[in-house]
Amino acid sequence: MRTTVGIIGGGPAGLLLGRLLDNAGIDNMVLERRDRAYVEQRQRAGILEQQTADTLRAAGAGARMDREGLVHHGIELRFDRGAHRVDFPSLTGGRGVVVYAQTEVVKDLIALRLADGGPLCFDAEVRAVEGATSDRPVIHYRHEAEDRTLTCDYVVGCDGFHGVAREAVPASVRTTYERDYPYSWLGILAQAAPVYDELVYAHSARGFALASVRSPTVSRLYLQVPNGTDPAAWPDERVWDELDARFALDDDPAWKLERGPVTAKAVLPMRSHVTEPMRHGRLFLAGDAAHIVPPTGAKGLNLAAADVTVLARALIHRRDTGSADLLDAYSDTCLRRVWRAEHFSYLMTTTLHTDPAHSPFDTRLQLAQLARLATSPHAAADLADNYTGLPLPR
Amino acid sequence: MRTTVGIIGGGPAGLLLGRLLDNAGIDNMVLERRDRAYVEQRQRAGILEQQTADTLRAAGAGARMDREGLVHHGIELRFDRGAHRVDFPSLTGGRGVVVYAQTEVVKDLIALRLADGGPLCFDAEVRAVEGATSDRPVIHYRHEAEDRTLTCDYVVGCDGFHGVAREAVPASVRTTYERDYPYSWLGILAQAAPVYDELVYAHSARGFALASVRSPTVSRLYLQVPNGTDPAAWPDERVWDELDARFALDDDPAWKLERGPVTAKAVLPMRSHVTEPMRHGRLFLAGDAAHIVPPTGAKGLNLAAADVTVLARALIHRRDTGSADLLDAYSDTCLRRVWRAEHFSYLMTTTLHTDPAHSPFDTRLQLAQLARLATSPHAAADLADNYTGLPLPR
Repeated sequence: MRTTVGIIGGGPAGLLLGRLLDNAGIDNMVLERRDRAYVEQRQRAGILEQQTADTLRAAGAGARMDREGLVHHGIELRFDRGAHRVDFPSLTGGRGVVVYAQTEVVKDLIALRLADGGPLCFDAEVRAVEGATSDRPVIHYRHEAEDRTLTCDYVVGCDGFHGVAREAVPASVRTTYERDYPYSWLGILAQAAPVYDELVYAHSARGFALASVRSPTVSRLYLQVPNGTDPAAWPDERVWDELDARFALDDDPAWKLERGPVTAKAVLPMRSHVTEPMRHGRLFLAGDAAHIVPPTGAKGLNLAAADVTVLARALIHRRDTGSADLLDAYSDTCLRRVWRAEHFSYLMTTTLHTDPAHSPFDTRLQLAQLARLATSPHAAADLADNYTGLPLPR
Repeated sequence: MRTTVGIIGGGPAGLLLGRLLDNAGIDNMVLERRDRAYVEQRQRAGILEQQTADTLRAAGAGARMDREGLVHHGIELRFDRGAHRVDFPSLTGGRGVVVYAQTEVVKDLIALRLADGGPLCFDAEVRAVEGATSDRPVIHYRHEAEDRTLTCDYVVGCDGFHGVAREAVPASVRTTYERDYPYSWLGILAQAAPVYDELVYAHSARGFALASVRSPTVSRLYLQVPNGTDPAAWPDERVWDELDARFALDDDPAWKLERGPVTAKAVLPMRSHVTEPMRHGRLFLAGDAAHIVPPTGAKGLNLAAADVTVLARALIHRRDTGSADLLDAYSDTCLRRVWRAEHFSYLMTTTLHTDPAHSPFDTRLQLAQLARLATSPHAAADLADNYTGLPLPR
């Protein structure tokens, strides 16, 4: 088989890239290792930057998001048992974020693709990418118990942190930057109405907690837990009690979460990772295949969307003008934004979590940083700017 | 002997407090352990926040500063072998800093005090503070080979990090927050015209460097060195060569420092320290006696000036109204500002220095943070706001 752009991975990065290329009339094929039901259920992020929402709208994939997504105009920070709101529109000239789960974005993109887009092949396990630096790279994959090949002009690895695409960049030209964190998140999904209008990020002596939203009737809640925590050690009541303790407010002692049936519970590791460069010959990496951020800043999905937007533009530019300039610049263009987001995600994470290695001095520095965010318009604007997302390069 | 306010330490904090109390007609005495020549020679900080300069002017101690001090409107950041200026007035609504060495501030305050102020006793070694929680605390000191006592209404410890005043606060009510850093500064004073108009802070793979100014003909320059470095291992030529290497610019390879005779060379440790509370009964701690910052943010002298300004106001308020409210609030009022400055100093320090424990990921985070300062008006304004100094509480 032949295609112009072979896309490995049918998560949000691969599906959005496919959509952008479909819209531009560039032939492409998406290969996804898992089946459709699995892909549509994977619990992941839920916060779309202004920029990401605009990209989905421009791609004709924003209709349900605009009907069902919740536009948020700020977040709440809790620390020292007090609450402080960061107002996005007044700090950013009108920007906000859209709360719309990654699973829903994926469902929308799959439905559009199956209705009128290019080919999308589930249960296609990519084994290797060959000839990345040749004119005709080839993807080897297994589908319906057969070994197959897909010959491409370009290959894009959107296959996540554990994918095979990154491995096709020789170790000799690849540099990896990594950091692990001494804590994880215990995340639950609950059939319970969020009692907060916006996301609540809590710093407490008991550890970090985050109250997020999936819909008007579904809450997504997180607790900092030690690495290696077994979710079975956290019965539902313990989770709810601990959440209430971490969100506690001195001047509103009655504040409590609405409780409801817990429909999912899992422990999520935290990691920072960047692979450079994001391009090797005709192989391009996008999203988690090239970089991971800890989830505190809600940047993972948004970085992936930015990567493929930059890449789609570069591929269209190549087709229209014959110039490979934008393709050649792809890695540097993306990495500037990636490192900005890595720094922001690191800062949000290390400011809000308790660290077993922290001294009392370190804890006071966290509180000083949070107090600064609550009192300085400049510091708050810097947070709001990063949180709602930086504009894409022109 | 009797006085209303007994001040331990004749550095800038003690002398400025004495001046503010003299101006208000409050009886006070300053006891300094060393002789006048020593105090007037101690090399220390050289950057006065807008607020500190205004305080000196209002105290009638700003005349020579206004004639000889250099007003700076920004700083230069160098990283990735490029230069980026942070412009203070446009980011802060007109604020700047004054380059005027601490030694000169001290000379001015001593001259004023000897001309028309209260008593200033050199070579007075304080041995102990007794009765801090009584109505009449007593300072025991040794002067001219005699043991003496000074009975006070209030005692203020301005005797620095190694002073005795802090020890008069019982360990049971005192909390200490500390952090050491895995590097020091090698500082030189040189008879060489600064070739830069403003301070230059350089991040480089070779370590941090800072080019500062004492006067139009005297440069003050610093190099990051490992802890325990012997200044003798750094002959002048080696210092100049290393400074040039760390300040090197890709787009201005001819950029070099002006070299000249080195008149002082010393290794300075870096430390963060806060003691809480800053008040115990009628004993008050101010400046380095209560808190130390690493010098990267130029906050040490300015925090000391803010402490004694807050304290002088509180003592005047007590005398004029009989209310101890401001004295009771002294520690909390100062500590809010202190922790802000501790955080800023920590951030400037850890963003600019190379740390032997750093991974390549950490180094890239530093560069991302510096790139953010160079490209985001919010991040730059936050830096400028902190650097030029926060306003004193009303």
